[in-house]
Amino acid sequence: MESIETLNLPEKGTKLNLEQAMFLALSEASKGASFVSPNPMVGAVLLDQHGGFISSGYHQFYGGAHAEVNALKGLRDEDLTGGHLIVTLEPCAHDGKTPSCARAIAKLPLHKVTYGIIDPNPLVAGQGVKIMSDAGIIAEQFSSNNKEIAAQIRIQLEEVCEAFLWNFRHKKVFVALKMASSLDGQVALKSGESQWITGPESREYVHFLRSCYDAVLVGKGTISFDNPSLNIRHPNIDKKNKVIVIDTEAELLNTCSELNLFHSHESQNIFWCIAEDFKSEIELKNPNSKLGPNIIYVKTNISGHLDLENLLEQIYELGIRSVMIEGGALTASSFIVSELVNRIYVFQAPIILGAGGAKSWTESVRIEKMKDKIQIQNPRYKTFGNDFMITGTFQKNRLETKNTNNQG
Amino acid sequence: MESIETLNLPEKGTKLNLEQAMFLALSEASKGASFVSPNPMVGAVLLDQHGGFISSGYHQFYGGAHAEVNALKGLRDEDLTGGHLIVTLEPCAHDGKTPSCARAIAKLPLHKVTYGIIDPNPLVAGQGVKIMSDAGIIAEQFSSNNKEIAAQIRIQLEEVCEAFLWNFRHKKVFVALKMASSLDGQVALKSGESQWITGPESREYVHFLRSCYDAVLVGKGTISFDNPSLNIRHPNIDKKNKVIVIDTEAELLNTCSELNLFHSHESQNIFWCIAEDFKSEIELKNPNSKLGPNIIYVKTNISGHLDLENLLEQIYELGIRSVMIEGGALTASSFIVSELVNRIYVFQAPIILGAGGAKSWTESVRIEKMKDKIQIQNPRYKTFGNDFMITGTFQKNRLETKNTNNQG
Repeated sequence: MESIETLNLPEKGTKLNLEQAMFLALSEASKGASFVSPNPMVGAVLLDQHGGFISSGYHQFYGGAHAEVNALKGLRDEDLTGGHLIVTLEPCAHDGKTPSCARAIAKLPLHKVTYGIIDPNPLVAGQGVKIMSDAGIIAEQFSSNNKEIAAQIRIQLEEVCEAFLWNFRHKKVFVALKMASSLDGQVALKSGESQWITGPESREYVHFLRSCYDAVLVGKGTISFDNPSLNIRHPNIDKKNKVIVIDTEAELLNTCSELNLFHSHESQNIFWCIAEDFKSEIELKNPNSKLGPNIIYVKTNISGHLDLENLLEQIYELGIRSVMIEGGALTASSFIVSELVNRIYVFQAPIILGAGGAKSWTESVRIEKMKDKIQIQNPRYKTFGNDFMITGTFQKNRLETKNTNNQG
Repeated sequence: MESIETLNLPEKGTKLNLEQAMFLALSEASKGASFVSPNPMVGAVLLDQHGGFISSGYHQFYGGAHAEVNALKGLRDEDLTGGHLIVTLEPCAHDGKTPSCARAIAKLPLHKVTYGIIDPNPLVAGQGVKIMSDAGIIAEQFSSNNKEIAAQIRIQLEEVCEAFLWNFRHKKVFVALKMASSLDGQVALKSGESQWITGPESREYVHFLRSCYDAVLVGKGTISFDNPSLNIRHPNIDKKNKVIVIDTEAELLNTCSELNLFHSHESQNIFWCIAEDFKSEIELKNPNSKLGPNIIYVKTNISGHLDLENLLEQIYELGIRSVMIEGGALTASSFIVSELVNRIYVFQAPIILGAGGAKSWTESVRIEKMKDKIQIQNPRYKTFGNDFMITGTFQKNRLETKNTNNQG
C-alpha cells in the first residue's frame, strides 16, 4: 500500500481518463488501510457518460459497505445513466456481510464497469463480471495502451490488497517485517540499546503501519530489553491490535504481570509462542488463566528453534491474517532466512552505529554468491523527517504472486 | 552540492524575489561541479530595477571567467542601470587568474549586490564588499524574513562550495566517502565479491561524483580484488582525475604494470601511499621510474597502521584539495574512525547481502552508547533507478564549519 499516492478528489465534472480514474480509485482504496482487514482495501470512482468525475468511495471498515456502494450512495438513476464505474477489485458476486455489489450494479443504468483485478477466490472469480455482463453492462478488466502506466497500475492494484490476495491464494498469514536501522544497517547496540534510532516522524508512521496489520510480532529479547507496549498510539487511529511474542523456552511467561504489554492490551489479544517440548511443563505450572496470554505450542526444528512456518499456520487458524514483525535482530533474521517475509519496511536514520560493536538485522543471513542476493521487488522510498523508509516485497513471494496471477 | 536543485532559467523579465534569485544562483553555481576545483562553484543572477530576470552565469572551469562576469557578459550600461546582482559568494577583491570582480562591478550602474557568503580567505574577506560600497553600490549579505527558507539557503550556500571553504578555513583536504551497499549495509561478500551491488544509474552518477573531486582514494584490497580503472567514464564529462592507493606494505607496487589503473591514467596522476618504514627498502628496489606511480611515505601509528591525517597532509602539499574514498570496507571504516570524513554518499541497492557472511563499511567502527552515535547532518535523499542515495556531512566537521562561520 506504500506505493499508492494520496490524491485530492477532483471537482465534479473534471474529465478523467481511465488511468487517472484508476489512480484515484487506488488512492481512495488506500484510505481503508487501518480498518478493513481481513477484507481487502477497495476503491471506486464514478464518471459520467462524458468522462466527468461524479463521485468516489472506498471500503472503510470490515463488514461495512463496499467501495462501489459508497461511490454510488445518494445518486439517482439520471446521474448514473451512461456512467462508467472504475473499481480496483472485481465487484463481489455473493451476498456476505453486505449484499452482492455486482447484483446491485446490474440494476443500474451504467454503461460500463472497469475493474482492476479479478476476485482471487476461485469459487467466485469472474462471477461478478458475469452478473454485470448479463445485465447488459460492459464489464472489462483494466488495460491501457500506455505500457509503463499500465504496469505501474497493475502493481499497485496487487499491492493495495496484497495481504488479502496472499491470504486467499495461499491460505497463509501475510508477513511484513519492519526494521529501524542506522545507515549502516544496525538495529541495536551490543548492550541491546536501540531507543531511539529513528525520529518521531518515523515512529508515528510505525503506529499507522501497526494499524494496517492484525498483529505485531516480536521476539523475547525485545520484550525483556525494551518492555514495549506494542499498541497503536496514533493521533488519528483508534484501534486495538494483537501481539504475538516468541519466547521459545517460556522464560518470560511468569513475568507477564510486569510487562507493559499486559497493561496496554487485554490478555486475550496476546499470543505467546513456546516450543512444543515445554507443553507439559507449562500446563502444569500455568493452568489456563484469564490473566495470562493465549499460549501457542510451536513445533521445533532439528536445531531446537521454533518452526516459524508452523507458528504462522497456527496463528492463521486463530484468525490472524497479517502480522508485522518488529524485532529484534534475531527474530527478523530468522524470518528472512526461512523465506517467510512478504513485505519489508526499513526505516533508516542518518546515523552510523558501527558494525564493529552493534547488531545487524541480518546477522544470521549468509549469502555466498552475488547471484544469491535477496532482491527487494518494486522498492519505494519515502522520507520521514530526517529519516527515510524503503519498502518492497520479497522476490520469492512476488514471483509466486505473479504465477498465480498469470493463471487468473 | 547534492542539496542543490537544478532549476530551468526563467523567461527574461520574469519577476523573482530575492530567495528565488538566490536559489537560481545556487542552481547555476552547481553547473560548475566537475571543472572548477580548487576554485569554488559560484553562480550569479542579474535582475533589472523591477526585479525582472535579465541573465545568469556561473564559474565554469578553473581559471575561467567568474560567475559575475559570465552573468554580465554582453550587457550594456542601459541594461544594468538600477540592476540587482545576486551572487552566491562575495565578489573577489583581488586580481588573480582573472581581474577583480568587485572592481569590475564598481564601475557599473548597478543599484545593489546581494552575496551569499563572505570570502573565507581572511586576507580578502570583506574587501570585495568594501570596493563596491565605496563605489556607491549597496552591497549586502543575503538574509530573509522567511527563516526556514533562509536556513535552507544558508546551508546550500556553504554546501555548494564546501570543499573550497574547508580548504581555506582549515588548510586541509576535503574528504568525501562514497559507499555502495546493500539495504543491510554490506559492501562486499566474504569472498570480496562486490560487483555489482548498485545499478547502472547509480554507477553513472558515481562517475559524475568522481569529476567533482580531485582524486579517488582506495585501499589495496579494492585494487587487488576488482582491478578497477578508477577513471571518469561519463557521457557528458571529459576529465582526467587522480588516483590515490593505500598499500601500507607496498604489496602491490611491483604489480603496477598489470593493473588497469595504469592503463587508464598517466602514472604521474597515481599516488601510492606506503608506510614510512618501507622507505629505504622501496628506494633500493624501485628507483624513481617514469613508469611507476608517485610514492608517498606515510607515518604510521603505534598499531602499525598509516596515520591518515599525515597522508592527507602530504597530498594537500601535492596540490590535491579533495578526495573521494571509494573503498573498500576497511579503508572506509578507518577514515570514519579517524574522524576525517567531511561528506558521505551512500548508495543503497534494494537487496539483502546478509551480515552473517558479508562485509560492512563500518566493520571497525564501535559505538558503545546511543549518545555517541555518529550523526549525518543535513541528509538529502535521491533515487537512481531502483537504488537510492543518501548524502550529508559529518557532525564534527559541520560544527567546525559553523564555528568558523560565526567568526566571519
